[in-house]
Amino acid sequence: MSSFKVLFHVSDNEIWPKALTNIRNFIKDVGPGGAEIEVVANAAAVAAYYNNEKADMIQQMAELAGQGVKFIACRNALKAHSLDENLRPSFVEVVPAGITEIVKKQSAGYAYIKP
Amino acid sequence: MSSFKVLFHVSDNEIWPKALTNIRNFIKDVGPGGAEIEVVANAAAVAAYYNNEKADMIQQMAELAGQGVKFIACRNALKAHSLDENLRPSFVEVVPAGITEIVKKQSAGYAYIKP
Amino acid sequence: MSSFKVLFHVSDNEIWPKALTNIRNFIKDVGPGGAEIEVVANAAAVAAYYNNEKADMIQQMAELAGQGVKFIACRNALKAHSLDENLRPSFVEVVPAGITEIVKKQSAGYAYIKP
Repeated sequence: MSSFKVLFHVSDNEIWPKALTNIRNFIKDVGPGGAEIEVVANAAAVAAYYNNEKADMIQQMAELAGQGVKFIACRNALKAHSLDENLRPSFVEVVPAGITEIVKKQSAGYAYIKP
Repeated sequence: MSSFKVLFHVSDNEIWPKALTNIRNFIKDVGPGGAEIEVVANAAAVAAYYNNEKADMIQQMAELAGQGVKFIACRNALKAHSLDENLRPSFVEVVPAGITEIVKKQSAGYAYIKP
Repeated sequence: MSSFKVLFHVSDNEIWPKALTNIRNFIKDVGPGGAEIEVVANAAAVAAYYNNEKADMIQQMAELAGQGVKFIACRNALKAHSLDENLRPSFVEVVPAGITEIVKKQSAGYAYIKP
């Protein structure tokens, strides 16, 4: 049973490596299954899900998703960056508005982290 | 009756366009009156309230204020940037310390968002 | 008795001056002893604790520590930047994982601020 609930908010593309390091270190610290972790990408950060030039980063995300980390994309941001949500990696979920998702999770007891 | 309470913290001038987009998309998602929204600007971000070269951005803020969004400026930041609080746009409220305002709102159940 | 509990998260080296200004203004506003304040540095931000070229900044931190502000370093970040935790300034505490510390403090009622 998870004792921690954490939401990571990623709104810049450049911040992804730091965010993924944060998440890996956190899981290492609390142990597998020790936390419910969700990553909400909005604004320019959604582009990373489609960046095949950084396939290793998408692979790292996929591995974390395999460990239970949820990766979310904001639909408004996808549209603003002309990204087709049907072409997203299969581990990425889309929500209508990233901010609403973040607010709801904080109401549900998730800690907020801006990496 | 608003079901959501959200505080946006803006501490960099460059982040304003992203913040305003976040707020517009959020309102579109939850509907008019669906949230109590406050924007606290501190540090260099307070300068945007006085930037007549970006009058369109101040106009966007004014429109959001007309929809109930509260715009706050930190007095310490205004002083640090030699900005006269009497010359601020009428929709901007001044608080003695931006950080205190942010802390109080989180205690009052506001979600925290750093755009 | 402190009425406020606040955690400042510093993950970029460049953000330290803004963070320290935030903290000083906040203490000035709520009065000495008016708040429990903790600063968690992770990622590249831990390097500031060792930057002797900015001795004045370390001195500012030491003064705030003297007023009760807790300064934390993430052990993962220290290792990643090849910084010896035994050589850190005496006012800095080390935690196994900065993210875990931030999450625990939010659970304990601390407001979260990303300067």
